[in-house]
Amino acid sequence: MRSRDPEVLVPQAIAGDRGALARLLTLVERGGEPARVVARLCHPRAGHAHTIGLTGAPGAGKSTLTDAVIGHLRSRGTEVAVLAVDPSSPFTGGAILGDRVRMQGHAGDDGVYIRSMASRGQLGGLSLATPEAVRVLDAVGLPLVIIETVGVGQVEVEIAGTADTTVVVVNPGWGDAVQANKAGLMEIADIFVVNKADRPGAEVAARDLDQMLEMTMRSPGGWRPPILETSAVEAKGIPDLWAAVETHQSHLVASGEGEERRRKRLADELRAIVVHTLERRAMELAGGDTFESVLAQVVSRRIDPWTAADEVLAQV
Amino acid sequence: MRSRDPEVLVPQAIAGDRGALARLLTLVERGGEPARVVARLCHPRAGHAHTIGLTGAPGAGKSTLTDAVIGHLRSRGTEVAVLAVDPSSPFTGGAILGDRVRMQGHAGDDGVYIRSMASRGQLGGLSLATPEAVRVLDAVGLPLVIIETVGVGQVEVEIAGTADTTVVVVNPGWGDAVQANKAGLMEIADIFVVNKADRPGAEVAARDLDQMLEMTMRSPGGWRPPILETSAVEAKGIPDLWAAVETHQSHLVASGEGEERRRKRLADELRAIVVHTLERRAMELAGGDTFESVLAQVVSRRIDPWTAADEVLAQV
Repeated sequence: MRSRDPEVLVPQAIAGDRGALARLLTLVERGGEPARVVARLCHPRAGHAHTIGLTGAPGAGKSTLTDAVIGHLRSRGTEVAVLAVDPSSPFTGGAILGDRVRMQGHAGDDGVYIRSMASRGQLGGLSLATPEAVRVLDAVGLPLVIIETVGVGQVEVEIAGTADTTVVVVNPGWGDAVQANKAGLMEIADIFVVNKADRPGAEVAARDLDQMLEMTMRSPGGWRPPILETSAVEAKGIPDLWAAVETHQSHLVASGEGEERRRKRLADELRAIVVHTLERRAMELAGGDTFESVLAQVVSRRIDPWTAADEVLAQV
Repeated sequence: MRSRDPEVLVPQAIAGDRGALARLLTLVERGGEPARVVARLCHPRAGHAHTIGLTGAPGAGKSTLTDAVIGHLRSRGTEVAVLAVDPSSPFTGGAILGDRVRMQGHAGDDGVYIRSMASRGQLGGLSLATPEAVRVLDAVGLPLVIIETVGVGQVEVEIAGTADTTVVVVNPGWGDAVQANKAGLMEIADIFVVNKADRPGAEVAARDLDQMLEMTMRSPGGWRPPILETSAVEAKGIPDLWAAVETHQSHLVASGEGEERRRKRLADELRAIVVHTLERRAMELAGGDTFESVLAQVVSRRIDPWTAADEVLAQV
């Protein structure tokens, strides 16, 4: 019988049992006490994986690009995990993406682990669930985690932007650079990819991005996002893209920015857990007996709402 | 010297001192302990004013309509307060609206009290500041409070929708009824006003609204929002509008719906205060010494974020 005990599953997953890994991620998604135990067991073992956020408008070819990157990495013998994050989908567990990837020929390859994450369940939504899932993949020894988002919504940009290296994918076509700026992608990009570069307008798109970067450069003397051209369908430009990721990784280590990002990410996660825990308590209180009895006193004007709130909060 | 002590200002404002009333509202806007004292002093005295929410797209003529309603009420000797709520403006204190109204001839009339409210300051924003301000106006004895919003943003619709009687203003023109539905105005309207009814298309707009109401009626046998035509600039239709407000007021009393709305409004306010108080605490904690010291332990992977959050929350 399959165990659901994190104390059993974590060593199994570290030993390479992908079924155990899948069950750990399901526990994380469901939240509650088991998810906390998973975090407690995984956190001391994590902190070694390099995370790559991949974002861009729907249709930009992110999934095809991810597949091409997987192919490149596997040809070098590197293991990789992919988290496909879709805030708009109620589905989790990787069925849809799994199908796609199986068709691409990664089926049965234990060096690739792919998982879809949707908004269902977990307290705090995907902004909290994603770092929790990355922690597990990291702790079991996967050296690379690609976080692929389906679009450029606020949550998706936020999630992709907290990776070690954020890759923003655009296509040839008028106004892409402007749209990237509007969606906040300029702020988070460490690397730009003009995908579908076999189509007309790739050079124009690259030049627009370059000009936009001139205007919005965050720190003079810091990292300047390179602009690469790929054709993921033909697997063109992928080695150069990966070389840029590795150059950025070296920059993170050499500049100390990697440590700084990691610290900020953990501070954000801790703050989010604190806020969400308090919000959950507030919601529990708002449905409780004390709330109803003090509300009755507010309605009859015996006490004011602020005094009433103090009484409710005395229960926290 | 002018007092800033709520214990002094409340009796002065009840005695009709508009300067004292203005200072009370400033205390409410600034928040903190003085605002709580104001709420404590005013809540037992409040609960008598009828509140009217007035909302609609920018340019629909809400301000002119408000002025026309004020004129109608003053001709009958009724006192009235207006809260002009603008989530997009950083200005408070009534300067802009005050100027407009002074031009309309209400200057020096102590039977009219007008105040602008913007998003600055107050914890919880306008959704919390508005009921606090209404409480003060109510407690000092103003029998009517018109809450006018500048547009149909989420906050504005929410604020207008919590009044005793919500008036939604539209104009003649194709698609207004559809837009009203999209903006969530159909849900909150107790009375529809087709303003600028001297223009072509007023009857079509009224008919569209009527058909839309047929489809979206909330409770069969309950209140059906009447659709009135006004021309605020020419002060046409205002007595009929006011008669509809009074009919709705009678309905609220007779059906018990008024009490129910009042109870829900206070429950919403209490819940909002609880949530915002906890959020403020979480933010204080996130900037505190405990947070920094546990974060250092998370970064060095001695403890996981969930255990760290427990340690931070032990300070609440």
